[in-house]
Amino acid sequence: MTQKEIRKILIANRSVPAVRIMHTCRDRKIPVTAVYSTPDRLSAHVFMADSAVHIGEAPPAESYLNMERMIRAAKESGADAIHPGWGFLAENADFARMVMDAGLTWIGPSPEVIRAMGDKIEAKRLAIRANVPTIPGIDRVEGVEDVRRWMREEDVAFPVMIKAASGGGGKGMLKVSSDEELPGALEQARSEAKKSFGDDTLLAEKYIERGRHIEVQVVADTHGNVVHLYERECTLQRRNQKIIEEAPSPSLDEDIRNEICFTATRLMREIGYTSAGTVEFIFDSATRKFYFLEVNTRLQVEHGVTELITGLDIVGIMIDVAQGAPLPFRQADIHPNRWALEVRVNAEDPKTFSPSFGTITRLQVPQGPGVRIAQGVYEGADIPPYYDSLLMLLMTAGPDRENAIRAMDRTLSRNLRVEGVKTLAPLLLSIIRHRAFREGNFSTRFIEEHMDELISMFKERDSEDEVLKIAKYVAEISALGPQDWM
Amino acid sequence: MTQKEIRKILIANRSVPAVRIMHTCRDRKIPVTAVYSTPDRLSAHVFMADSAVHIGEAPPAESYLNMERMIRAAKESGADAIHPGWGFLAENADFARMVMDAGLTWIGPSPEVIRAMGDKIEAKRLAIRANVPTIPGIDRVEGVEDVRRWMREEDVAFPVMIKAASGGGGKGMLKVSSDEELPGALEQARSEAKKSFGDDTLLAEKYIERGRHIEVQVVADTHGNVVHLYERECTLQRRNQKIIEEAPSPSLDEDIRNEICFTATRLMREIGYTSAGTVEFIFDSATRKFYFLEVNTRLQVEHGVTELITGLDIVGIMIDVAQGAPLPFRQADIHPNRWALEVRVNAEDPKTFSPSFGTITRLQVPQGPGVRIAQGVYEGADIPPYYDSLLMLLMTAGPDRENAIRAMDRTLSRNLRVEGVKTLAPLLLSIIRHRAFREGNFSTRFIEEHMDELISMFKERDSEDEVLKIAKYVAEISALGPQDWM
Repeated sequence: MTQKEIRKILIANRSVPAVRIMHTCRDRKIPVTAVYSTPDRLSAHVFMADSAVHIGEAPPAESYLNMERMIRAAKESGADAIHPGWGFLAENADFARMVMDAGLTWIGPSPEVIRAMGDKIEAKRLAIRANVPTIPGIDRVEGVEDVRRWMREEDVAFPVMIKAASGGGGKGMLKVSSDEELPGALEQARSEAKKSFGDDTLLAEKYIERGRHIEVQVVADTHGNVVHLYERECTLQRRNQKIIEEAPSPSLDEDIRNEICFTATRLMREIGYTSAGTVEFIFDSATRKFYFLEVNTRLQVEHGVTELITGLDIVGIMIDVAQGAPLPFRQADIHPNRWALEVRVNAEDPKTFSPSFGTITRLQVPQGPGVRIAQGVYEGADIPPYYDSLLMLLMTAGPDRENAIRAMDRTLSRNLRVEGVKTLAPLLLSIIRHRAFREGNFSTRFIEEHMDELISMFKERDSEDEVLKIAKYVAEISALGPQDWM
Repeated sequence: MTQKEIRKILIANRSVPAVRIMHTCRDRKIPVTAVYSTPDRLSAHVFMADSAVHIGEAPPAESYLNMERMIRAAKESGADAIHPGWGFLAENADFARMVMDAGLTWIGPSPEVIRAMGDKIEAKRLAIRANVPTIPGIDRVEGVEDVRRWMREEDVAFPVMIKAASGGGGKGMLKVSSDEELPGALEQARSEAKKSFGDDTLLAEKYIERGRHIEVQVVADTHGNVVHLYERECTLQRRNQKIIEEAPSPSLDEDIRNEICFTATRLMREIGYTSAGTVEFIFDSATRKFYFLEVNTRLQVEHGVTELITGLDIVGIMIDVAQGAPLPFRQADIHPNRWALEVRVNAEDPKTFSPSFGTITRLQVPQGPGVRIAQGVYEGADIPPYYDSLLMLLMTAGPDRENAIRAMDRTLSRNLRVEGVKTLAPLLLSIIRHRAFREGNFSTRFIEEHMDELISMFKERDSEDEVLKIAKYVAEISALGPQDWM
């Protein structure tokens, strides 16, 4: 690929990912076009951009998922490249192809790779070809008997997992614990898959009990260089969606770490990957085996923890690679030297996970040593009900896990204030204070298993805080005299 | 020294340093008492503390410099340790002694070391004894003839520097360019020294033309371990006060770096230093020689850049050492692996440096990759005219100097908004965009030499911004239709 200089980038996204990508564009003095739907016209990402184009109404299909309008917006604003961020069109092979056919630079992997990895059966096939361990399972489940035969032949016991072949983000995934549940589960998964992805092909896999979700960040250029930036642990999920991520993983030793990272690199090299991408694995801490899950062919929400431990700018690398530049480092140059954590401050009820939308009436953003913020909102902003509930990513880093956790505790307990909408912050604080989390002893089921305990932890804190506030108020009054206090 | 656990810390300071120290206290779950003067009763550091004690009226002598009240506040609030921050009582040996005599833990070096290093003549004597190069000069200047004799005997040419023996922060320092200026300069320096430090003892030194200010951060415990955390470059000063700092220094090669760092360590070991402290040098880039200036026996404003490149928490180390713990690392464990910059966002007119006080009517705090903020104010806060003008420290870090500068440029040009008071931000942005700064080619006189050019740079930017704003507004209107725009 020849070098082609990018002169202006359209970010086909909103809020946190749009703001994040803009930071790097600023660093490189590349002007940015933002896009926005009508309810987003006063969003943070619009104010921060050099120019902004209105692309339609609130429903994603009419704006952030509208491929034609997105390309028209790029053309009209003079952008010659598109970064898709994460979510929306980020893993849409048709869009990537359409961008390239319009003569624009696509800041991401090739449409062919996006398409191959978007098909779970094809992805698994390619993984097996690259000698990457995969979870025992069968590709195409037509009916109950297919599952039973496979379990019998390969000596697999319940529970098993039923998945939509085109799925992602936890949709169309069902755990089946017994033979009696099997027919109903297949029915339900098929209908969810049809509805969510327009494709009701199902696959079945052995269910890994108490598995841990480990993913490897990989970057690759168009000159054949593929380098991993080590792993992230993303085991803490609610409803199959990550809410706390960290790097490195506390569950790997050096041998497994090297094996899993080099396995990811081998796969990405094999499939001809370019740009930044992630290979996801499930790690069974009991047997110390890991299995391939999928490849995310895009920038991920949690890329920042990898940036914190390596000092690199992954968005910057994506832009460089899209311009045809070779990676400016080799594998031997990558030496992570921090521990980093990220929590997702979603606008959700921390007890029920139901979304909480409205106006942010007060916003105090944390700061201080070891803290990085990726923010999509400002005080006074409205959180529209049409999109995901992510308000802000809080990241902390330290020389080791203990220090990163301490900084996160300080940040969540003292420095963050959000009023007007509910957030996950109280739950996130409970998790990072929980003994099992501190000890690194948790699985993807941690939150569901401990939910009552986590909630009771934040109720206790609330009452302590009240006592503290009153004590402080009394101290103020006695020091100043009531007439001085306002 | 035996281990003694600190249970509650009184921070004998305000604003940025108080908030900074509180972050580490939170990390260690050590409760904090803040102190405040009457105009500071609604300051950020008061709101963030667990408890707060009113210690007097606005003038520093009646509050932040009042030693008896400070110790009473500690006793009354149940604090068993005092951290002095920087400024105010931080380098007051009498206060350190008084704290210890009151049975409290002093989080800083011993009173004896503070006293010895506070006396410039004694400090220089100790440096010479430790084989540390010092600037040629004479200790006690009684009159004009002393200076003339020394210059004749040691073959020193003008300019020379006259300094108050007890001085610091640029006060009582005068550059003398010719023999005619000498009598008047001595007179003036003596009167300033008397007024500022109550001691009119003067010394004279050879003036290093186009010198660079390099300082080495050292940490030491009470078990004889002394470790340097590498150097900072603090050459960019206005009126002898730093406004931009970075680490590492762009002006040192590896040989000089090692020599200067180990020289600093040797001196600190020789004088029995404990806690965190800094050895300041002037570096003559023409001759590649460095000379001892002074030891700062306290935490410094710019310690954060060292934390960014090493991943360590210097305030945390001070607390550990005060509790009698040994340093948890050795020299060989310290490997800086980032480049970091800091700018001081002072509430000052960026053209005249006159202080700008009032109410902060709008405050947008930068965030994003590579950014660290140390903030002493909030939106709506009043900046009282009694204290220093530091609103906020902005720090950025990256894998190399270019990336750290890019992130600082983005931060200053796009992400920071302060309304209600003037700040140095436009000047700081001009400096980091100036060719000489980018090339690392500057001396302590950079700002005075380039002031007109720096000011014209921000005037140009202002008019560009206006054009951009109008263009963006027009784009918005045409996309949304005027009725949708508010």
